[in-house]
Amino acid sequence: MSEERRILLAHGNGGRLMRELIEQVFARHLGNPLLDTRADAVTLALPESEIVFTTDGFTVQPLEFPGGDIGSLAVHGTVNDLAVAGATPLYLALNAFIEEGFEIERLERIVASLARAAREAGVQVVAGDTKVVPRGEGGGIYLATTGVGRRTHQRRLGMDRIAPRDCILLSGPIGDHGIAVLLARGEFGLSGDLRSDAACVLPFAQALLALPGLRFMRDPTRGGLATVAHEIAQATGLEVSLNEPSIPVRDTVRAACDMLGYDPMYLASEGRVVAVVAPQDADAALAAWRALPGGATAALIGEAVRGPARVVLRTELGGERLLEELEDDPLPRIC
Amino acid sequence: MSEERRILLAHGNGGRLMRELIEQVFARHLGNPLLDTRADAVTLALPESEIVFTTDGFTVQPLEFPGGDIGSLAVHGTVNDLAVAGATPLYLALNAFIEEGFEIERLERIVASLARAAREAGVQVVAGDTKVVPRGEGGGIYLATTGVGRRTHQRRLGMDRIAPRDCILLSGPIGDHGIAVLLARGEFGLSGDLRSDAACVLPFAQALLALPGLRFMRDPTRGGLATVAHEIAQATGLEVSLNEPSIPVRDTVRAACDMLGYDPMYLASEGRVVAVVAPQDADAALAAWRALPGGATAALIGEAVRGPARVVLRTELGGERLLEELEDDPLPRIC
Repeated sequence: MSEERRILLAHGNGGRLMRELIEQVFARHLGNPLLDTRADAVTLALPESEIVFTTDGFTVQPLEFPGGDIGSLAVHGTVNDLAVAGATPLYLALNAFIEEGFEIERLERIVASLARAAREAGVQVVAGDTKVVPRGEGGGIYLATTGVGRRTHQRRLGMDRIAPRDCILLSGPIGDHGIAVLLARGEFGLSGDLRSDAACVLPFAQALLALPGLRFMRDPTRGGLATVAHEIAQATGLEVSLNEPSIPVRDTVRAACDMLGYDPMYLASEGRVVAVVAPQDADAALAAWRALPGGATAALIGEAVRGPARVVLRTELGGERLLEELEDDPLPRIC
Repeated sequence: MSEERRILLAHGNGGRLMRELIEQVFARHLGNPLLDTRADAVTLALPESEIVFTTDGFTVQPLEFPGGDIGSLAVHGTVNDLAVAGATPLYLALNAFIEEGFEIERLERIVASLARAAREAGVQVVAGDTKVVPRGEGGGIYLATTGVGRRTHQRRLGMDRIAPRDCILLSGPIGDHGIAVLLARGEFGLSGDLRSDAACVLPFAQALLALPGLRFMRDPTRGGLATVAHEIAQATGLEVSLNEPSIPVRDTVRAACDMLGYDPMYLASEGRVVAVVAPQDADAALAAWRALPGGATAALIGEAVRGPARVVLRTELGGERLLEELEDDPLPRIC
């Protein structure tokens, strides 16, 4: 890697340069006993016979932002999908599409950050592939991660388990990720010390698994809280009634939204959980979340009620606002 | 999908357009009982406790070529990695990075082809994600697939099991895929009726699994047969001695290579298997392959011998040529 400091097309051709890139950048940071960069496939011994499987792609711009980068995000996004499904994340496969000319030093930073996030989440990257695309294509780097987890939760979670009067809980403030990425672009001449909330939500998900009334969990990423609420309404035929004053939103996020015309309800978070629990378990769930680091502002934000399948936001002044399904993309490329 | 015939950025935002795209294009073609487009993760019940896991990215240009397209290739590439590892492919996760402005009709063709290849290989697409990147980025569409298979083979396969005198077998002609894709680009004013060999190699891999002397299998994709031979030499410390006249190469491929200065040894195949077997099992392996459709030209092409770790090609006239590790990319974007 010494002589070339930028990615060449030949780094993707299956030959020496590609082998060196994989050994010196990817395997050096991601190494673990299962990762064999010369193997076509890896054998995983799983103690149970049910696995949980998920995949996600990442095209965030800028690639690095306060509180994270595309590498850590690619771990958190997939690990969190397993966590909210009630699984324990174990293994990741990583795909990288790298643009010719990309700085190898920057690639190193991103891979090191990805490796750190994987260690913190307790997952191992056990398979991977890189492709190099010509200069001008590829936006620097795109990543895709696919996760395998062990199903540890006996009761099935799902939107179809949601019943009228079930409570909707949120683990922390919404929209930090969306606005932090937006500010990092510097397009609007705004700046601030807001950091993305991107993080592993496994502690939040696992804190609720013992509750018999746990129905469903999801992380409100692309499309935000409003989109999760719409998915629940559509799947259940229930009205999702949200109480606006209860929904935690940081002042910085609210101020940026006011200035730029965004609605925090549609902005992505990357380290929050929306949970639906039976009414009798709501207090226990909130107490469990508030006891966790970063969980102080966890809140009961609404409930599912009989009525037409729609999402209603009840405002501070007693008004009601229908939250429509997302149409235009408020903030592209935030994950 | 009626009013918009091209991909918009909003098709990637998590809202209505994305939901419709996923339902009407991806889920319509790929639908199966396990695929829930609204779920974060899928639970897979596997009869055994060992799974085999692999991933691959696809950036082929052009996206459609004689004998295949990026969709079928994304199935074959990953299914074949599981097959040569001695596993039975079961499930795929699919990531799509789609460029804004991409024709939805073309996306449909690609997804339909992917679905057909998956059905033929007996795998189900059970998880997926789409991202839309701005016009000018993304080369139309990139795909990544991650596969899960069941380990059915009791004996472990691996390059470390290869011993001196072991035989190297090849299941069919090399380089068809590389040259078919090259000709499809139309850059050189050449054309021909050569089709890519891209196909599921599961029947070829499974035909050898009963042989006690089976050591190792691999599909010679990026970097071609020469690169597989180099990986064997490096991993074993043995010389890989290949007999050039025994290596099947189609006349069209040889003619194109002669005209354009390519070496078929480095060109990608996407439907061939290289196998290393103990000498006493070579005849049985060849007979099994030749009995399969498309296996008539399967051949014993060389052996592993004591000596420095290198790859030697013995030519028709009794000469020797050292095959170097691939440096320059002869044909970028062929997978």
